[in-house]
Amino acid sequence: MLVVSLMRLDEEETRLKEAFPEVDFKFYKHPSELPVDLQEQMDVVISYHPEVDAQFIKQSPRLKWIAWYATGVNSLPFETLKEKGIQLTNAGGVHAQQLTEFLFAYILDDYKALKEAYAEQQQKVYNNKRITASLNEQRILFLGTGRIPQRSAQVAQTFGMKTIGLNTTGHPADYFDETYPLSERQQHFAQADIVVNLLPETEETYHLLSEIDFEAMNDHTLFVNLGRGTITPESVIIDSLKSKKIRKAYLDVFEKEPLDEQSELYTLDNVYMTPHISGNRSDNKKRATDIFSRNLTSFLKDNKLVENVVNANKGY
Amino acid sequence: MLVVSLMRLDEEETRLKEAFPEVDFKFYKHPSELPVDLQEQMDVVISYHPEVDAQFIKQSPRLKWIAWYATGVNSLPFETLKEKGIQLTNAGGVHAQQLTEFLFAYILDDYKALKEAYAEQQQKVYNNKRITASLNEQRILFLGTGRIPQRSAQVAQTFGMKTIGLNTTGHPADYFDETYPLSERQQHFAQADIVVNLLPETEETYHLLSEIDFEAMNDHTLFVNLGRGTITPESVIIDSLKSKKIRKAYLDVFEKEPLDEQSELYTLDNVYMTPHISGNRSDNKKRATDIFSRNLTSFLKDNKLVENVVNANKGY
Repeated sequence: MLVVSLMRLDEEETRLKEAFPEVDFKFYKHPSELPVDLQEQMDVVISYHPEVDAQFIKQSPRLKWIAWYATGVNSLPFETLKEKGIQLTNAGGVHAQQLTEFLFAYILDDYKALKEAYAEQQQKVYNNKRITASLNEQRILFLGTGRIPQRSAQVAQTFGMKTIGLNTTGHPADYFDETYPLSERQQHFAQADIVVNLLPETEETYHLLSEIDFEAMNDHTLFVNLGRGTITPESVIIDSLKSKKIRKAYLDVFEKEPLDEQSELYTLDNVYMTPHISGNRSDNKKRATDIFSRNLTSFLKDNKLVENVVNANKGY
Repeated sequence: MLVVSLMRLDEEETRLKEAFPEVDFKFYKHPSELPVDLQEQMDVVISYHPEVDAQFIKQSPRLKWIAWYATGVNSLPFETLKEKGIQLTNAGGVHAQQLTEFLFAYILDDYKALKEAYAEQQQKVYNNKRITASLNEQRILFLGTGRIPQRSAQVAQTFGMKTIGLNTTGHPADYFDETYPLSERQQHFAQADIVVNLLPETEETYHLLSEIDFEAMNDHTLFVNLGRGTITPESVIIDSLKSKKIRKAYLDVFEKEPLDEQSELYTLDNVYMTPHISGNRSDNKKRATDIFSRNLTSFLKDNKLVENVVNANKGY
């Protein structure tokens, strides 16, 4: 069995070799370094590089399993995977903690007016009359109720917030006070103080939010996007911010990444942006390798994958 | 029975009058507006103004209860209160939510590097290589284990942090994984990633932390002060930050308030300051009046106070 990683895994490499002495591991820094003969022979590939596309997969006739070391799998050619019967796992869950921390960093930065206070500190102004908003009893609405939103909703409940989740059918989910179908979203937007997108990119979520959705939101709404930038066209979010349909946005993801220097988003004073860093974490490789190891144990035994299996029909 | 408030309580005034028709309420904007004859006749005073001192109390011979509408009672003359048998209640617990929100606003601002990302946004730099630290498994040590630290420790545990609390005897407290006596603090500082002061000002806590304490801390320590600025001399915190005994500080309270414009703190690049605003909240009056009402019901019945009674010997 040949497992090829198209990224270096540092100390995880030794760990894998020691745990699976019967497996042949090869580690490369970049897909371009992979020799053609190994690409033809590999059974499993570890990567999250966009070069792993339909063409690449066609040159890997023995490939049975793609272990994607990221959560978002939208760059992968699902039709080709289905055609060839290639299984796919992702690193979903690895990022729940990091994304939740960013979400509350954003929300508290806004609610506690930290940037305003910092500006005053730099001017040596001691303005002790400032009253800040509280999270207590605020209504936070999540697009998505999977593992990442559940982790975020858990923290939100501890802060005393009311958690509302939207998913395909409106089925209940842990840590959500209320759940509704995504199709009914507009009637729930108006009551939300904070709207958070944590949906993956799929055919159904691509450009899901239009002008009508932002119009349905409250004009004091804080909108946070930590899912995928393609949930709404960039022009819609820009218009909503300019026309104050919503109060403010915190965005970590963008319709086109990297965000163009010419983007009008850079000129607005009610948007705060981070450059798709919310998932970055020094021990991501370790955590993704934990998932991979558990799957590899099972795969070696009976070709079954047990954790983080992506449904190629659903795309998540 | 005459109850005088030395601050206006807005809509809470009607609420009190309606709930207690047998009580005579008077509301003033400032202690200076209080007529001498009323000061002599009042049974109960509501305030958190520093003019309520030993002199003021001596001019109020019938006074039996001071309902302090703040948590910190250190400006009050405890000897006089004991001498005259005057009971004291505070608004402790009202601020637990707000202070906890500020604590995590500070910690997440630092751990998620929001200011650094914001500086890049302003320069239109898209640096998606940034890796931020995670709260997971970080050790957060609290000076104090009362209601406010317990609320903060509850949120810290939900974020996956290890919570260590220091109090007088080392007794256990809710939401703390470990508790130790304050006297042993130096041996616990070295293992802490974050040190948070939430102690009230008392004779025992005044200048409790000296150079030795900051030397005992880890050089990557984040120090947060949301308690009282007098926990350490300003010179000690300045030296500790300048010499990098600790990595960074977030301060909401200062030894002398308002902070002097000439303070060297304003010149340091590893301190972030807010001007004692962490307790400010638009509904503080409502929440403090909730406590006051429950106490007044009991006080009218049998002169007993049941909630937030301050021990004049301990000073908290």
